[in-house]
Amino acid sequence: MKETAILLISCTDQSGVVAAVTDFLQKNSGNIINLDEHIETESRQFFMRVEWQLKGFAIPEEKVKDYFETLVAKRFEMDWDIEFCQCIPRVALFVSKHAHCFFDILNRWESGEWKIEIPLIISNHEKFHHIAERHKIPYYHIPITKANKKEMEKKEMALIEKYNIDLIILARYMQILTGEFIENYPNKIINIHHSSLPAFPGANPYRSAYERGVKIMGATAHYVTEDLDAGPIIAQDIIPISHNDSIAEMRRKGKDVEKRVLAQAVWEHINHKIIPYKNKTIVFS
Amino acid sequence: MKETAILLISCTDQSGVVAAVTDFLQKNSGNIINLDEHIETESRQFFMRVEWQLKGFAIPEEKVKDYFETLVAKRFEMDWDIEFCQCIPRVALFVSKHAHCFFDILNRWESGEWKIEIPLIISNHEKFHHIAERHKIPYYHIPITKANKKEMEKKEMALIEKYNIDLIILARYMQILTGEFIENYPNKIINIHHSSLPAFPGANPYRSAYERGVKIMGATAHYVTEDLDAGPIIAQDIIPISHNDSIAEMRRKGKDVEKRVLAQAVWEHINHKIIPYKNKTIVFS
Amino acid sequence: MKETAILLISCTDQSGVVAAVTDFLQKNSGNIINLDEHIETESRQFFMRVEWQLKGFAIPEEKVKDYFETLVAKRFEMDWDIEFCQCIPRVALFVSKHAHCFFDILNRWESGEWKIEIPLIISNHEKFHHIAERHKIPYYHIPITKANKKEMEKKEMALIEKYNIDLIILARYMQILTGEFIENYPNKIINIHHSSLPAFPGANPYRSAYERGVKIMGATAHYVTEDLDAGPIIAQDIIPISHNDSIAEMRRKGKDVEKRVLAQAVWEHINHKIIPYKNKTIVFS
Amino acid sequence: MKETAILLISCTDQSGVVAAVTDFLQKNSGNIINLDEHIETESRQFFMRVEWQLKGFAIPEEKVKDYFETLVAKRFEMDWDIEFCQCIPRVALFVSKHAHCFFDILNRWESGEWKIEIPLIISNHEKFHHIAERHKIPYYHIPITKANKKEMEKKEMALIEKYNIDLIILARYMQILTGEFIENYPNKIINIHHSSLPAFPGANPYRSAYERGVKIMGATAHYVTEDLDAGPIIAQDIIPISHNDSIAEMRRKGKDVEKRVLAQAVWEHINHKIIPYKNKTIVFS
Repeated sequence: MKETAILLISCTDQSGVVAAVTDFLQKNSGNIINLDEHIETESRQFFMRVEWQLKGFAIPEEKVKDYFETLVAKRFEMDWDIEFCQCIPRVALFVSKHAHCFFDILNRWESGEWKIEIPLIISNHEKFHHIAERHKIPYYHIPITKANKKEMEKKEMALIEKYNIDLIILARYMQILTGEFIENYPNKIINIHHSSLPAFPGANPYRSAYERGVKIMGATAHYVTEDLDAGPIIAQDIIPISHNDSIAEMRRKGKDVEKRVLAQAVWEHINHKIIPYKNKTIVFS
Repeated sequence: MKETAILLISCTDQSGVVAAVTDFLQKNSGNIINLDEHIETESRQFFMRVEWQLKGFAIPEEKVKDYFETLVAKRFEMDWDIEFCQCIPRVALFVSKHAHCFFDILNRWESGEWKIEIPLIISNHEKFHHIAERHKIPYYHIPITKANKKEMEKKEMALIEKYNIDLIILARYMQILTGEFIENYPNKIINIHHSSLPAFPGANPYRSAYERGVKIMGATAHYVTEDLDAGPIIAQDIIPISHNDSIAEMRRKGKDVEKRVLAQAVWEHINHKIIPYKNKTIVFS
Repeated sequence: MKETAILLISCTDQSGVVAAVTDFLQKNSGNIINLDEHIETESRQFFMRVEWQLKGFAIPEEKVKDYFETLVAKRFEMDWDIEFCQCIPRVALFVSKHAHCFFDILNRWESGEWKIEIPLIISNHEKFHHIAERHKIPYYHIPITKANKKEMEKKEMALIEKYNIDLIILARYMQILTGEFIENYPNKIINIHHSSLPAFPGANPYRSAYERGVKIMGATAHYVTEDLDAGPIIAQDIIPISHNDSIAEMRRKGKDVEKRVLAQAVWEHINHKIIPYKNKTIVFS
Repeated sequence: MKETAILLISCTDQSGVVAAVTDFLQKNSGNIINLDEHIETESRQFFMRVEWQLKGFAIPEEKVKDYFETLVAKRFEMDWDIEFCQCIPRVALFVSKHAHCFFDILNRWESGEWKIEIPLIISNHEKFHHIAERHKIPYYHIPITKANKKEMEKKEMALIEKYNIDLIILARYMQILTGEFIENYPNKIINIHHSSLPAFPGANPYRSAYERGVKIMGATAHYVTEDLDAGPIIAQDIIPISHNDSIAEMRRKGKDVEKRVLAQAVWEHINHKIIPYKNKTIVFS
């Protein structure tokens, strides 16, 4: 097993950044196995992702963040993060009554494709309780109403703390989170929603898309911000639609693209490939 | 060369329609080589496209429309059209200063890929006059302002009549047509526009899409109706975008998907594969 | 719930076929809700799929096959089949040690997306026994060796008969079936295999594809014939690959496209949209 | 206009490479605006693409290659190249009788989308002479037979030298080049060929693909090596195919994907995004 660390950096573009970072790693015998860099030309913002082997690295794991801050990050006023790949992210699933994304995530976890732990499932319905039990995952049925939302979200936040959660996936969770909840988990909540070209507002977007005769249906995975469905986009894709597709068939195809796009976004997140910046994301390949 | 005719039908779904049509053709020795049918279950609307060989067909070409109306269409209150495939559609191109769709259409015509004639090019700029001359296509420079729009459109309509135009392609024509103009050519004007998920209104959608960090750019080809960019969709597709794509690169990729989607829509139109219905299209494959 | 029947027809193209079929249905008050037809021009072969409502249909379900054969099929020397949509297909899964397709199929079944029954799982390994138990599906561990293959396949065939199986899905089943086995289930066994452009023979195609630097990986779902991996293709798709993808990552992406393509093929099969003909398939949309 | 230089490097992965390169640029006031790096883990081969602004760069353009070799490249035993972006690549087109790729390239050049010059067109047919004349591009009709191939290729090589060609595009050029010709232009000849899954050898692959009922058609753009169609792949893509597509329609769709994939490969080449290595390519995004 490779033990590596990943450094994600964002700072104003300036002379000497790359050299300073690679210097820091290489002088301490950190063997770089991956380096990606991006400069947003207009804003002169610099982004970097470096992965290096911990074996032989001169700085002990528990001190590396401190050293990096002192020796490099401070000088360039970096926003930065270091992730250790042997740390397995702890994921909470928020679900309602739709199975497709929820089941797909359980599959990828159970088959070992994703190196994650799922210590917590929260739902506003009892529907999937038996699924959670089957996998021995604690399942909390927290029915939310307008009246009790604040109180229920407090309960949820307590659970997230209790179970030491790193990432929240809204796997077709049909509740709108409050700003108070969201601001506690910046870039830690991933949501999936379907959409079409043009976008149809209102209660029944599938019907509107059907009546307009759209030829593609899309899905968008994004980090959740207070502005509903308008957070930084992580992944998007579409599926072709024809006049042969009934609304039911559009829904079925929509589910397939939703689960595919959500899975891609989560994969990129748990592999530390994403740097959010303003309202967009840099997703290194 | 196959000489065939194509019948496009739309009517209320009712017992006996398919049998009546196939009967009409086969009793008159019309060899069916293609038949597609679609029923929109909710509205109970029936759509059909039949292609048959004219060789050996008992009804002479000039009488077939009359006979069909009398013997079949009337009874079922059909909207219908018969197209003879040896008739080469006469296409007018409306262009501004963008070359990509315009050049692509000229290519497909000049290489013989599309069996069309292009007897007319109209532009609000002189820019592509020499291109038209090279191909010996009449090019009319009709600069439109708010003040002269009605008058100029009259001039355009006179040209469309003079040149006996069957189809108008807005190949990135950057002018908005008036309702008076549009209503003369129902389902005879095809437009292409780019778009993204979500859609960004305003003057600079590429910039907005860039700032939001969209991961796909799309294009939509549609028949033009009075409701701007909201006519029946014929074809749509997307191209992946990443954080590496500058606004300039997004534009370049956008052009590629625009020309591809417009070409697909025109191909389907000139092959009589499309039945518009309400604000959507049935596009037989 | 709609109760419908689906008629799949293949015969030499000849005058009057469509009229005869639609006549047969409509004279007996069979309301057609879907009709697709295809003519392979070169071979003059005709294909048709008609779906009609059983409610009000004058011929009782148990007699419709007999009547159709006598009144229509015989005259045109048709290959044909009638499927009743309320009949739920009984599917056997053959699996080895790969989870992705297997789990995905279980999901689609358990969530109700697919109307199928899964009364039988056969594997050459014990690995997924507990998964089958969880779903209360009989799981037979039948380890096959070169020496015992004929005998083991007999056992499998007995199980397929016992459980009254309509469709066998090889969900990454890593055994080659004998001709004796295959010929018992013509167009009833669906397999999935990955592939690339160009195709790489040999033991480690992923390595070869990696070393050649392919930019796409594909998957093909097909009916199994005696000619290994060369049966009629049902569905195909690809996923983009870049130099950033290690062999492990190519495998991971390959799994995603495999499960997507297999699911599409099975969906089309269980919805009776496929007519195999010679070594190809007509897949109505 | 940005004036930049691009450095492409390939060498054994070793400590200090990135730091040495970025140091070299930054100590000489070279403002890096793009940096991509890739490590092929198995072979321990390191690849890098750096783009920096020439404005203010301390080393004069005519000396930068010499300095880089001496100060950096030698030490790490690099294969490397420096491209100056204001240098406009001179492209020779080799064509036969197929218009689609040829016309598409002319378009992208004439519209200014691609910053290239096209000083030379070579063809084994007279067919497109008038197209070349229209654009005032020298057109050489060099009909090749088995008997005269060596002699004719000498003539071609003389023209390539005379016109100072940087890149040869085989835009559906239906002749096989000899090894003698190819070895003069390593990674300087780009070819496009269509293909399908599975691949069909023989004279009529479209017919074979049609008879097998493939559901996708693909195209591959690659550098030409002596091993026919087996050089390093640059770009690949596919287009969906259905049973409705006749062989003629498959060809038409095939042309569309060919011209798209060839255009992508050429774009990546002329923007110096490609590093060939062994029989594959690193294509930076």
